[in-house]
Amino acid sequence: MNTAIRIIGIDPGLRRTGWAIIDAQGNSLRFVNAGTVRSDDKADLASRLCQLHDGLADIVHGHKPEEAAVEATFVNKDATATLKLGQARGIAMLVPARAGLRVAEYAPNAVKKAVIGVGHGDKKQIHMMVKVLMPKAKFDTDDAADAIAIAICHAHHRQSAVGRLALESLK
Amino acid sequence: MNTAIRIIGIDPGLRRTGWAIIDAQGNSLRFVNAGTVRSDDKADLASRLCQLHDGLADIVHGHKPEEAAVEATFVNKDATATLKLGQARGIAMLVPARAGLRVAEYAPNAVKKAVIGVGHGDKKQIHMMVKVLMPKAKFDTDDAADAIAIAICHAHHRQSAVGRLALESLK
Repeated sequence: MNTAIRIIGIDPGLRRTGWAIIDAQGNSLRFVNAGTVRSDDKADLASRLCQLHDGLADIVHGHKPEEAAVEATFVNKDATATLKLGQARGIAMLVPARAGLRVAEYAPNAVKKAVIGVGHGDKKQIHMMVKVLMPKAKFDTDDAADAIAIAICHAHHRQSAVGRLALESLK
Repeated sequence: MNTAIRIIGIDPGLRRTGWAIIDAQGNSLRFVNAGTVRSDDKADLASRLCQLHDGLADIVHGHKPEEAAVEATFVNKDATATLKLGQARGIAMLVPARAGLRVAEYAPNAVKKAVIGVGHGDKKQIHMMVKVLMPKAKFDTDDAADAIAIAICHAHHRQSAVGRLALESLK
């Protein structure tokens, strides 16, 4: 019997971290909730990381997902931006891992392929397809929509070796 | 009256995070302990971040520092290395911040200036001066020695506006 698995998808960022909770049962996906954890950009970095931590911990404890998926984004702008993203991403992976969840990582092209069928495409296409695949999905920001796409990607890959392969392409 | 303040210095890294505890009372510095938290490079990233978190949390709860200082290192090698460092650094800042500590950041040249008197110099010079400034200091790795230097830097800067200026140079 196929029991439902609850997945949290996370799109990490220091200013805004998108999150989405979906239930996957075989090929059937159900939207549960999605939103955005924000940090106060006037606060110091350590406080902002605490805000992301506490916001995500509330979601994990409130919705009790069983598996987590985080996007492995690269920012190629500059080292400062990459370091900032890394700090937020560290928190995004730590919170579900400390709650005992397995945390999968997916490259952006794997997320796009899972949602729009090809490994490239813009944000608009992703959001449109999220709406097609999951008509009841509601999201307040682009980051929350991306988190839904990441959760859908994990639902497709979790029972195969493809998740691992998707990650291999990052190395 | 000048009461002693206990400081934790942290040199973050995904593989090895150096830490040092010192007590500062006016101009007098006392070495308490230093060491290295390691993560298992065969484990997945989320588990490694948990290992860094738990190791640092043990130090913070065991030694009860009152202020924290973290080096703001930039790795200019490549985006992957910078992202890894950022992830470890996120954890290194989160742990003391969640314990209620103020977390100061210092650029590498500020740390060097505090320890060897000028803003440049190699690891050997830093280690030699750490031994001169704090003869009882013991460290198991370069990362632990660097963490002592970071703690000394914070002891020098914490009561002045210079700490803020040292950070300004990062922006």
